[in-house]
Amino acid sequence: MNEAALTLEGWYALHDFRSINWTAWKAADDEERAGALEELHNFLQEWHGDEQSGKGSTAVYSIVGQKADFVFMHLRETLEELNALENAFNKTTFAQYTTKAYSYVSIVELSNYMASGDGDPKANPEVMARLQPILPKSKYICFYPMNKKRDLDDNWYMLSMEERRGMMRSHGMIGRGYAGKVKQIITGSVGLDDWEWGVTLFSDDALQFKKLVYEMRFDEVSARFGEFGSFYVGNLLNEQLFEDMLKL
Amino acid sequence: MNEAALTLEGWYALHDFRSINWTAWKAADDEERAGALEELHNFLQEWHGDEQSGKGSTAVYSIVGQKADFVFMHLRETLEELNALENAFNKTTFAQYTTKAYSYVSIVELSNYMASGDGDPKANPEVMARLQPILPKSKYICFYPMNKKRDLDDNWYMLSMEERRGMMRSHGMIGRGYAGKVKQIITGSVGLDDWEWGVTLFSDDALQFKKLVYEMRFDEVSARFGEFGSFYVGNLLNEQLFEDMLKL
Amino acid sequence: MNEAALTLEGWYALHDFRSINWTAWKAADDEERAGALEELHNFLQEWHGDEQSGKGSTAVYSIVGQKADFVFMHLRETLEELNALENAFNKTTFAQYTTKAYSYVSIVELSNYMASGDGDPKANPEVMARLQPILPKSKYICFYPMNKKRDLDDNWYMLSMEERRGMMRSHGMIGRGYAGKVKQIITGSVGLDDWEWGVTLFSDDALQFKKLVYEMRFDEVSARFGEFGSFYVGNLLNEQLFEDMLKL
Amino acid sequence: MNEAALTLEGWYALHDFRSINWTAWKAADDEERAGALEELHNFLQEWHGDEQSGKGSTAVYSIVGQKADFVFMHLRETLEELNALENAFNKTTFAQYTTKAYSYVSIVELSNYMASGDGDPKANPEVMARLQPILPKSKYICFYPMNKKRDLDDNWYMLSMEERRGMMRSHGMIGRGYAGKVKQIITGSVGLDDWEWGVTLFSDDALQFKKLVYEMRFDEVSARFGEFGSFYVGNLLNEQLFEDMLKL
Amino acid sequence: MNEAALTLEGWYALHDFRSINWTAWKAADDEERAGALEELHNFLQEWHGDEQSGKGSTAVYSIVGQKADFVFMHLRETLEELNALENAFNKTTFAQYTTKAYSYVSIVELSNYMASGDGDPKANPEVMARLQPILPKSKYICFYPMNKKRDLDDNWYMLSMEERRGMMRSHGMIGRGYAGKVKQIITGSVGLDDWEWGVTLFSDDALQFKKLVYEMRFDEVSARFGEFGSFYVGNLLNEQLFEDMLKL
Repeated sequence: MNEAALTLEGWYALHDFRSINWTAWKAADDEERAGALEELHNFLQEWHGDEQSGKGSTAVYSIVGQKADFVFMHLRETLEELNALENAFNKTTFAQYTTKAYSYVSIVELSNYMASGDGDPKANPEVMARLQPILPKSKYICFYPMNKKRDLDDNWYMLSMEERRGMMRSHGMIGRGYAGKVKQIITGSVGLDDWEWGVTLFSDDALQFKKLVYEMRFDEVSARFGEFGSFYVGNLLNEQLFEDMLKL
Repeated sequence: MNEAALTLEGWYALHDFRSINWTAWKAADDEERAGALEELHNFLQEWHGDEQSGKGSTAVYSIVGQKADFVFMHLRETLEELNALENAFNKTTFAQYTTKAYSYVSIVELSNYMASGDGDPKANPEVMARLQPILPKSKYICFYPMNKKRDLDDNWYMLSMEERRGMMRSHGMIGRGYAGKVKQIITGSVGLDDWEWGVTLFSDDALQFKKLVYEMRFDEVSARFGEFGSFYVGNLLNEQLFEDMLKL
Repeated sequence: MNEAALTLEGWYALHDFRSINWTAWKAADDEERAGALEELHNFLQEWHGDEQSGKGSTAVYSIVGQKADFVFMHLRETLEELNALENAFNKTTFAQYTTKAYSYVSIVELSNYMASGDGDPKANPEVMARLQPILPKSKYICFYPMNKKRDLDDNWYMLSMEERRGMMRSHGMIGRGYAGKVKQIITGSVGLDDWEWGVTLFSDDALQFKKLVYEMRFDEVSARFGEFGSFYVGNLLNEQLFEDMLKL
Repeated sequence: MNEAALTLEGWYALHDFRSINWTAWKAADDEERAGALEELHNFLQEWHGDEQSGKGSTAVYSIVGQKADFVFMHLRETLEELNALENAFNKTTFAQYTTKAYSYVSIVELSNYMASGDGDPKANPEVMARLQPILPKSKYICFYPMNKKRDLDDNWYMLSMEERRGMMRSHGMIGRGYAGKVKQIITGSVGLDDWEWGVTLFSDDALQFKKLVYEMRFDEVSARFGEFGSFYVGNLLNEQLFEDMLKL
Repeated sequence: MNEAALTLEGWYALHDFRSINWTAWKAADDEERAGALEELHNFLQEWHGDEQSGKGSTAVYSIVGQKADFVFMHLRETLEELNALENAFNKTTFAQYTTKAYSYVSIVELSNYMASGDGDPKANPEVMARLQPILPKSKYICFYPMNKKRDLDDNWYMLSMEERRGMMRSHGMIGRGYAGKVKQIITGSVGLDDWEWGVTLFSDDALQFKKLVYEMRFDEVSARFGEFGSFYVGNLLNEQLFEDMLKL
């Protein structure tokens, strides 16, 4: 049984990080700004509608520090829908007051290491709910991309399935210790973007991100085989908070 | 028999990734935009004509995420033709609404590991069709550059021809499992660009890119020796879809 | 007892490095500059007020060399407060004369290697003073982010707790040799930013930064396991010195 | 006998890669463009004159792909002359329509591994012709910088002179197999620029660049010890072709 | 005796690399340019005055290639003075025609490996002349930053003092072979900037930079333990030559 066949995939994901061009935003007149905010309002409504009708889900968070000012994390059925979302946004007046900061293309995945093998997993509503998740409205978000290392003696992909399964099980146990505290969405990006996975964490206590990632770092899967990209952390933006952020 | 002599090369390739400067595009007046679209239309027609007359082939795709907005993948007989194509595009009004995102120079190649050794392979029309391929109009594209590692004990170029041939054969078997699902164009770029090969995949199901690349990663050739650059994934752009993308 | 549980965390930290756009600053008229300086003055006052009322602490330093012109190092109770501070600053006229240079998100931490284990450490006022520190007004600052290596045989996270504790103890002894000369604030950033820790040093003699970091580099913890990012060094900016720096 | 003493050096080299700012070039009026082309014409004439009078040599090529639009490769007797050439160019109106893309500072060198040791090699006109070469007008150019690795067991500089000489000899044999097809200029840049050597290849068949560099990669010198920077490949630009490239 | 205690430090150093914005410089009118040159003249005079009065030393060189157009290398007693120098320059009209290219913060140091241990070395005028050097007016400059490696078996900081001293001694012998040809200023930057040391070489024959650095590369200290940043090489700029460079 090959490795790829054991993985289940759900919605495609686009993390779209943007910075605000404050100089341009301040230089705009009141009318332009009102129009831009109206566009933003319409998008937020539309994305909310997509979520209501089961077509996808979108999370909106501010980002702390200079890496970006906010992120749209979109989940949709196809790459075409994600592409359409970003193009529609790019055409707005509001988008002209932002600059690109970072993006990530991936697809929600359930790991093959958990596979039970009985029946069609996609017939299981619990599985489908994890493949096409409604993103939580937690107070905080954390995103980072990662690889499994292939470095001489520390080569994840040269291990046997049994070795990998054993390590992933102990890894999963740590995650389970944070059940109820941190919600984790794993998205696969082999063949789609520059790292092998994206990890998006949601919590009402940002400290739990640190606790979880730090505890996992001592686990052999991360200690020997984890390779991590940039970390983005931020605060929930509902429509009111987004407007407050933009109010001059 | 030296290594280089066993490789067959066909058309030169230029992958030309561009981003749209939406602010400038929106600031243009209707007439300017119409003129720019006319230029784009003319290019697409011209490139289509080149394909009809056997002078080369060009694929046009949008790119998902912030890395680029679209890519022109040109195949032509000579470096001069590729250079002329990019210069002609750069001189258009349409090009002034785009910015450079990434490019890759390479040449279609058939690996020496498959060589049968009988007769002149270039007399074989099947071989020539693979060396001067008409690019498919699949729904999705995936491009990434790659190297074979030269890192202490994981040094591809210090292996014997037999070891390499054995590994490449098993590698090819995985690819064959995706026949009919994924079309793969390998272009060599040693001495032409920063990585040793470019890989361009075409499919009507983007998920197959992930499945294929992930399955291959467990194969020793990739696991121990594969080194990968950035991945670009996108959706087919025919003339209508390109115009839709640009419509305000 | 897991690793994460042994660490104590205090205030969140945002290091916000900025460069001055001197061309724009010089092009502004006297009134604009006076208004911008007034905004800066108000912020410095407000941050001072936060310090007085125990809501946090802010240090302000110039940076030597081209990496940045100054840094605001903010400590506050929540990520929301840090985000609000940077957004408020971004909306000022003064901010329009600056550009982003670098930022770092972390949280004050006391290492688990020192843990005594008796009682609730957060009930100890000395511990709380270290978790919610008032930043010193020393003449010089030094900031750098760092990781513990995970490189084949030099993998900190594969060592036993005993090995790590032994090495950290000897490491701490070096630090103690600089007591009274260098004040050190360690902030953890696993899950929050791109490195695992931030180190901020304060001293009235910048040479002590070099002496301390160099001496530590021969200690096994740093020699084998330390991985360092960029170093930023600068001079104290009180309100008068900040105004002098900006005076044309 | 020390290593450095065995190397012979000739003319200093400056590879000056530039991109054209097409938006500005198109925005210029006919008169400005004519003036800029006149300046370019004068420079090409002047550099041709330098070549005629034995003061140096200059090659001019377009570059395929987005890395640059063209390169001036200057060889001159002193660093002052190279600096004067770039400053003179920077002051032209034509230069205002270009942007910096990449540059490389080095000096033509003959390797110590070939040294015969008899008499003063600089008295040998054949040697001098290789140290102060007139650059060929081949159809294609290829440039890349490189290092010899110093990585644990793969450390070129820890090998004995005999080991290095043996490997370089076999390496040279490959190069000799391309005699008449590829002309190679080696320039040393230890202490002058970021890599240890620059390699500039000239050929009337660009495919030979790929064949040569690929064949060499299996040679131990490259396989174990070669570290390569970016590759730039391009087409010959004589004055007419340069004008064609710039014609709107 | 700890390592840091054995090192002697002198003046702080700021290497300030700048590029000229030629488009802006050409767009300025004669009066603006004359004013800017007057400012530059005044700075050069002031820095010369600092040198006369023993307050520091400043070297001014052009840089060959695109990395920068010129460098100010300032030595002064304190970080505050260096910061004041760059701020004063940034406020000039001349500076508005330049852009930041690279900078380096360090401090002149004499290595502990040479220490004799008798008496207070700072009472020795010869030692003080090396800690507070007047920078030579040689025809050429070469600057590069460097580290000592900490990579598995090649870890400088895990060697004993005896091993390091032995290697440094043989290293020093090579340097001595260039006495009278190359003047070398070592500045330490642990805790001050991104590399551990800066090396600035001065010579009347630029080829000696290559000879010296290449010969040292075969020495075990460099071969196994040297890690090098970018190399900057340039020509002496006295006031006349600086004006010539800027004359249109």
